[in-house]
Amino acid sequence: MTKVDPAVLDQLIGALPDGAVLTDPDMIAGYRQDWAADPNAGTPIAVVRATCTEDVQAAVRWASEHRIAVVPRGAGSGLSGGSSAVDGGIVLSTERMREITVDPVTRVAVTQPGLLNAEVKKAAAEHGLWYPPDPSSYEICSIGGNAATNAGGLCCVKYGVTTDYVLGMQVVLADGTAVRLGGPLLKDVAGLSLTKLFVGSEGTLGIITELTLRLIPAQPPASTVVASFESVESAADAVLAITREMRPAMLEFMDHASINAVEDSVRMGLDRNARALLLAQSDAPGAAGAQEIETIVAACEKHGATEVFATDDAAEGEAFTAARRSVFPAVQAMGSLLLEDVGVPLQQLPALITGVEAIAEDCDVLICTVAHAGDGNTHPLIVFDPTDPDMTDRARIAFSRVMDLAIALGGTISGEHGVGRLKRDWLPGQLGEDVMELNRRIKTALDPLGILNPGAVLS
Amino acid sequence: MTKVDPAVLDQLIGALPDGAVLTDPDMIAGYRQDWAADPNAGTPIAVVRATCTEDVQAAVRWASEHRIAVVPRGAGSGLSGGSSAVDGGIVLSTERMREITVDPVTRVAVTQPGLLNAEVKKAAAEHGLWYPPDPSSYEICSIGGNAATNAGGLCCVKYGVTTDYVLGMQVVLADGTAVRLGGPLLKDVAGLSLTKLFVGSEGTLGIITELTLRLIPAQPPASTVVASFESVESAADAVLAITREMRPAMLEFMDHASINAVEDSVRMGLDRNARALLLAQSDAPGAAGAQEIETIVAACEKHGATEVFATDDAAEGEAFTAARRSVFPAVQAMGSLLLEDVGVPLQQLPALITGVEAIAEDCDVLICTVAHAGDGNTHPLIVFDPTDPDMTDRARIAFSRVMDLAIALGGTISGEHGVGRLKRDWLPGQLGEDVMELNRRIKTALDPLGILNPGAVLS
Ligand SMILES: Cc1cc2nc3c(=O)[nH]c(=O)nc-3n(C[C@H](O)[C@H](O)[C@H](O)COP(=O)(O)OP(=O)(O)OC[C@H]3O[C@@H](n4cnc5c(N)ncnc54)[C@H](O)[C@@H]3O)c2cc1C
Ligand SMILES: Cc1cc2nc3c(=O)[nH]c(=O)nc-3n(C[C@H](O)[C@H](O)[C@H](O)COP(=O)(O)OP(=O)(O)OC[C@H]3O[C@@H](n4cnc5c(N)ncnc54)[C@H](O)[C@@H]3O)c2cc1C
Repeated sequence: MTKVDPAVLDQLIGALPDGAVLTDPDMIAGYRQDWAADPNAGTPIAVVRATCTEDVQAAVRWASEHRIAVVPRGAGSGLSGGSSAVDGGIVLSTERMREITVDPVTRVAVTQPGLLNAEVKKAAAEHGLWYPPDPSSYEICSIGGNAATNAGGLCCVKYGVTTDYVLGMQVVLADGTAVRLGGPLLKDVAGLSLTKLFVGSEGTLGIITELTLRLIPAQPPASTVVASFESVESAADAVLAITREMRPAMLEFMDHASINAVEDSVRMGLDRNARALLLAQSDAPGAAGAQEIETIVAACEKHGATEVFATDDAAEGEAFTAARRSVFPAVQAMGSLLLEDVGVPLQQLPALITGVEAIAEDCDVLICTVAHAGDGNTHPLIVFDPTDPDMTDRARIAFSRVMDLAIALGGTISGEHGVGRLKRDWLPGQLGEDVMELNRRIKTALDPLGILNPGAVLS
Repeated sequence: MTKVDPAVLDQLIGALPDGAVLTDPDMIAGYRQDWAADPNAGTPIAVVRATCTEDVQAAVRWASEHRIAVVPRGAGSGLSGGSSAVDGGIVLSTERMREITVDPVTRVAVTQPGLLNAEVKKAAAEHGLWYPPDPSSYEICSIGGNAATNAGGLCCVKYGVTTDYVLGMQVVLADGTAVRLGGPLLKDVAGLSLTKLFVGSEGTLGIITELTLRLIPAQPPASTVVASFESVESAADAVLAITREMRPAMLEFMDHASINAVEDSVRMGLDRNARALLLAQSDAPGAAGAQEIETIVAACEKHGATEVFATDDAAEGEAFTAARRSVFPAVQAMGSLLLEDVGVPLQQLPALITGVEAIAEDCDVLICTVAHAGDGNTHPLIVFDPTDPDMTDRARIAFSRVMDLAIALGGTISGEHGVGRLKRDWLPGQLGEDVMELNRRIKTALDPLGILNPGAVLS
């Protein structure tokens, strides 16, 4: 931890409401890492728990004046070390910014960033409306973090990702200026697409202090198909067959190891012998829904599913979805994790999944793979024992090789979790030097002192 | 027209394939203006009709070396003077870049920018796929122009606008570097959201030379409702009632003057006495579609529609849609036009439409208003006789007042056509100085010499 002049810290404390600035080391400790437990996370000199845009402005102005790093933090559920604290910097937490209003006529929600995704969904549901993006972490991640990472989820194969629902925002820039971008307008092309630029910028361009979100009418009840396969190739082929014909409301994949990790922890009665499992939903109404379910079932059967189960019981469908969501915690119980988020063009999905299996074997580590299969976005979870240095090394090598494989297949190192600090070194390999330079130019234009989330995304 | 050193021009001609550079004044004349007929358009020193990315690079490198302005041009159907030529500059036309490939497995099209929107739709349809964005100009606008303006259309109330379908692009930057952003990946958050930034940048940040577009399964057949109203308020209220309950596949508005302009030209049998007309579609399948049509009909009746007509005959529905699309050309036959593209939060739609009526009366000019009503995006078309200086002045005042009204209602000066040159002076009024400064910083970071479409969007 870098030392800071106590008088400088006092200025910060003085500029903010009572209790907004934490300096107690024990309290600060909880703000050092996100869910990825970045081993290189630093120790901040203070944590600012802002209550409003003005608090954020005061903190950023102070940071700008003293050239102190600011790491924005939502709920810390990130999986890429995006909110790892920086030695000598501050963490700016939005956890206390929790107001929301919903306008059912314009179908728009205006929310502060600290509200959890699940709370936004709930506020919308009170008006018969729906905020679709549904990261598996929806009960533990903030809507501000979702916007900062452009979070995806299970239903986005049909309903799109966070950026598709962000109409506007208020954002505090690196010099403390607060600007409003967009607003409750369904269409607005006046000036550059700045709202879209800030979505997914992982706290490197500004701090989001308010979001205007588009809501849609409540989702119709969904029917669910669960299908087991004897090989990952056949499951991946079924995915291509389904997406070629229709847009499922969910199309998730679990491999053998994930199925068993879930069964160990929640006991859903999944086929422990299956090499792969697909979980698909249709929410098309009436006969159209029945037709879609038939298409899904037929595609699975045609591609050699050993068992296909369909239900239109919503509670049963949600139980399977919850099982899918529980993969991360279930696998985490097995050891430390290196979390991948690689995506590929859809027809490369079989090559990616089987390639990851080969890397696991080659590196002699366990890799459990789940995937938002309909989007080509996979999460190989590399399990290792951190007290075993050799295994830790092999896990790191596997981590790198999975990203290299995705890039070689024309894919991305991150489909939805963000680059953060943990995948930063692979970004140039994906983007190439010219596009890296474009990223840096925009970063420099907006944050010339480099105080906003330094070390995240760009080095 | 600014004089240019013939030796410099020869360098350009030498750097490009035979026939790619036009310098003949008669031929150049056709590239001076877009559909808005900007009276202040300049005369370019040459028109480059590029055939490939390398041609664009060669032209831009030359322009950068000699600090010569480059105005990118698709099909010139723009309505904001975005591709008005600049004295002493070149026009870079993409009209000859017309290749496309469709991959039905990944449901992606890779297209050069010069293809017309209708041609992209057709190429997708050959594989049973659909490219949704449908500007009324779809038969005369390029897909590159659509991406550069983030074009909307009739179905985007349900299916979204151009940016929602652009997965990646190749773009030539101000120094002639060609970069690839995104790709055929449904989800990709690696690095800043640059693809989204370039969409809607109106040729001010780079020249799009290739697009990777997301396609979706073919649209189901739609049913159509046409409803006449005795006042614009009741029609606007019906719009709010409909969008509160459901997502129509189309929800268009025409006022009295537009109805009559269309009847004068195509004779659809619309009610010439109606003060307003709504044209709505549902493409939900089967019973769900019937239910949606019922909701639309009920909302219209509840809000005092004098006549409601519903049909599930696709050809009949398309005839009404074609009538709606024909409003621009029909009104254009009545005189010169100043074209507005103002949008407001949905609940302000009645205030905007009635406010425009008041402005028309006050300024004593004819304003025909059509609207993508479900998006809150309206097109008041101000008709004037350019040989009548007094009327021309009044039209200009009305043009300004309509934008001021939209801004006062929390809206935008441009929902889909772009700011271009004709609405540039109103942009600061909407965005405010801080956001203007953000726009300028990004422009400067990417185009430090200011050679890309100077005078468009920013001054
Ligand atoms: C069990 C589990 C399952 C998950 N499943 C998914 C999934 O399905 N899809 C998915 O996309 N993600 C998933 N995630 C990852 C994570 O939940 C998302 O990335 C989420 O969007 C992070 O939100 P957060 O509030 O926790 O952000 P944090 O972890 O606090 O921060 C994430 C990033 O955003 C920045 N940031 C946060 N708030 C702001 C703000 N207001 N302004 C500017 N920058 C800000 C931070 O600096 C950091 O770079 C999962 C995580 C877990 C633990
Ligand atoms: C009758 C009529 C109806 C219309 N209806 C609609 C509608 O419903 N919705 C809608 O959104 N628009 C509509 N428009 C406006 C217009 O068609 C759109 O703005 C369209 O996207 C412009 O495409 P274009 O190829 O004609 O572009 P142009 O007019 O040639 O150029 C438009 C802008 O894009 C830039 N540009 C063009 N190509 C490129 C490129 N490859 N790289 C970078 N910049 C480029 C130009 O510099 C300019 O700023 C309508 C126009 C007409 C005439």
